[in-house]
Amino acid sequence: MKALRWHGNKDVRLDDIPEPQVKPGWVKIKNGWAGICGSDLHEYLIGPKNVPFNKPHVLTGETIPTTIGHEWSGTIVELGSDIPDSYGLKVGQKCVVFPVLGDRNCVYCVEELHGACPNWGFLGYSGFGGGFAEYCCIDAREVLPIPDSMGLDVGALVEPLAVAWHAIKRSSVKPSDAVLVMGAGPIGIAVILGLQAQGVTNIAVSEISELRSEHARNNGVRHVFNPQKDDIRQRTLDISPDGCGVAVVYECTGVQAAMEAAIQSVRGGGTIVNIGIFEKPLTLDWNLLNRKSLNYLGSNIYTKGEFQEVIDAIADGRLKNPERMITSRISLDEGLEKGFHALLHEREKHVKILIGVDS
Amino acid sequence: MKALRWHGNKDVRLDDIPEPQVKPGWVKIKNGWAGICGSDLHEYLIGPKNVPFNKPHVLTGETIPTTIGHEWSGTIVELGSDIPDSYGLKVGQKCVVFPVLGDRNCVYCVEELHGACPNWGFLGYSGFGGGFAEYCCIDAREVLPIPDSMGLDVGALVEPLAVAWHAIKRSSVKPSDAVLVMGAGPIGIAVILGLQAQGVTNIAVSEISELRSEHARNNGVRHVFNPQKDDIRQRTLDISPDGCGVAVVYECTGVQAAMEAAIQSVRGGGTIVNIGIFEKPLTLDWNLLNRKSLNYLGSNIYTKGEFQEVIDAIADGRLKNPERMITSRISLDEGLEKGFHALLHEREKHVKILIGVDS
Repeated sequence: MKALRWHGNKDVRLDDIPEPQVKPGWVKIKNGWAGICGSDLHEYLIGPKNVPFNKPHVLTGETIPTTIGHEWSGTIVELGSDIPDSYGLKVGQKCVVFPVLGDRNCVYCVEELHGACPNWGFLGYSGFGGGFAEYCCIDAREVLPIPDSMGLDVGALVEPLAVAWHAIKRSSVKPSDAVLVMGAGPIGIAVILGLQAQGVTNIAVSEISELRSEHARNNGVRHVFNPQKDDIRQRTLDISPDGCGVAVVYECTGVQAAMEAAIQSVRGGGTIVNIGIFEKPLTLDWNLLNRKSLNYLGSNIYTKGEFQEVIDAIADGRLKNPERMITSRISLDEGLEKGFHALLHEREKHVKILIGVDS
Repeated sequence: MKALRWHGNKDVRLDDIPEPQVKPGWVKIKNGWAGICGSDLHEYLIGPKNVPFNKPHVLTGETIPTTIGHEWSGTIVELGSDIPDSYGLKVGQKCVVFPVLGDRNCVYCVEELHGACPNWGFLGYSGFGGGFAEYCCIDAREVLPIPDSMGLDVGALVEPLAVAWHAIKRSSVKPSDAVLVMGAGPIGIAVILGLQAQGVTNIAVSEISELRSEHARNNGVRHVFNPQKDDIRQRTLDISPDGCGVAVVYECTGVQAAMEAAIQSVRGGGTIVNIGIFEKPLTLDWNLLNRKSLNYLGSNIYTKGEFQEVIDAIADGRLKNPERMITSRISLDEGLEKGFHALLHEREKHVKILIGVDS
């Protein structure tokens, strides 16, 4: 079968590899759609970061080349033995894959604080297959059924939406709060959709790129600010009901200037949730965090329960129009050229590029 | 009457000024004891920071010279008119002063997020008198009675203990948690006493100074580490029940290296509460806050309710041996020499120096 695999820095290849074989407790999935994540692009450009390159991954026993893609959906084509009926899995069932490879001996994994696991493993990096392939075999415990009414394309969005959902839960936001989202890339847009699903309407976005600002507007955001032109602090004071600034900032950029604006714009006693990855150490006046009695919360990945909550929120219509995140659909054959290279050269045009196995 | 007043940088003088006159709703207090705070020393050395030096303070109408000292107790000697009986104030009543000058038109002050108030004012800096004087007149709403059984010296410790109490409440610590206190200065020791009052026993302290380490040991801390000799991360892994690190770090130093050790030593999903003031911007790898799903909470001042909680905890014996914080008692006449100058030259010998008006 075809699979996009990481061989080295800037060396992702469309390989022909054997189809995986199902084993007891596992299911075989014909992959449907898989999204390209910012961290896939990172891995391509400046990896190895997440792939096991110099020794076998402790949870999979595999080393590179490993199949990439961790935001994906598919259809079950074969069940291994010993899968409890209660999992709701059967041949023909649409599903999504929970990509976290938890270590059952790890305190953090038991607590579902997966990001802190010292043996951190992820389907789509560490082995056991991934989304950018025709098939995968996955432990049935990590396979979540989705309703027939949900498109497999939307299913591929559950993972990035769960990243945002986790951050929103961390923030304890209230529907009446004014909030600021730093950055209108894929995670910024996912945060916006998640906030709207939870009844938050007073949403501002700070974004430099005009193309990405347009994505925010298309997703119903009224207050779209440009930090190169607008005084973000003043604008957020203006939109907040008490004139004190926003109650929560969702930092999705990983950029120093955005963090500075976040600290300036959040009201006293407010919360900054960080989702973005910083490429460099930050130099900041930390006293402002103290003087304003701020809460700064690192938000990393999600739990399986949150994956299910996102599926439920899409299914019952609370999380509206997730398909608007999809800005391009390409085939596995086109994955490198119209996927990775397109994101390198015109990243801002895109929110989410999906690679479709059947397309 | 005698009063220590801030006239300028390194210019605090023992002045002879008129006794303040009581007015409706205010009480006159004969001051008992007042502690010298680290921020008093800051104001002396690198001020003006908190005093109104170039224009009258918006809440007091006063400019320098203002009387300093904001950690203090005393005895009521005169009541103004119109003070409700429910305040429990009478002539001869021992009391402490809640030094925050809230702005009743400020959203933050109404929420008791006083540190975020744009008109931030404080007795002992901004006018209306302070603790380093023979008498003061204070709005009765800011005067809290203390039991007769409580010494006025202990009463002067309520303010720094309330700073710690607020930080401990912010942290949501549980009695079974392993915790780390960075720094065994006055606030570090106050945090230790507050933690012990709340049943936390697995307390580690990181402190460079041998003299200050001794203060921590004298206050019942078993695990006293020296960051210049010990691997703080490894030591905290060793003392934590699950081997993952401490659940909470209380950062009381304002030093970059301490913050780095805090981020390394706290367990995934754990909490760092910052109380220390940083003199310089910090350069840190913020991704660690994200990867470990940390909570970083700025803790600033306290509420009036927390002041009362500290009084109650001392009175009912939960907060034990607060008087151990007192390492020197001096008179108002000795305030500059044996107070400010002693702290400048042998700061580490001291936890809290009290200036006593009657002594």
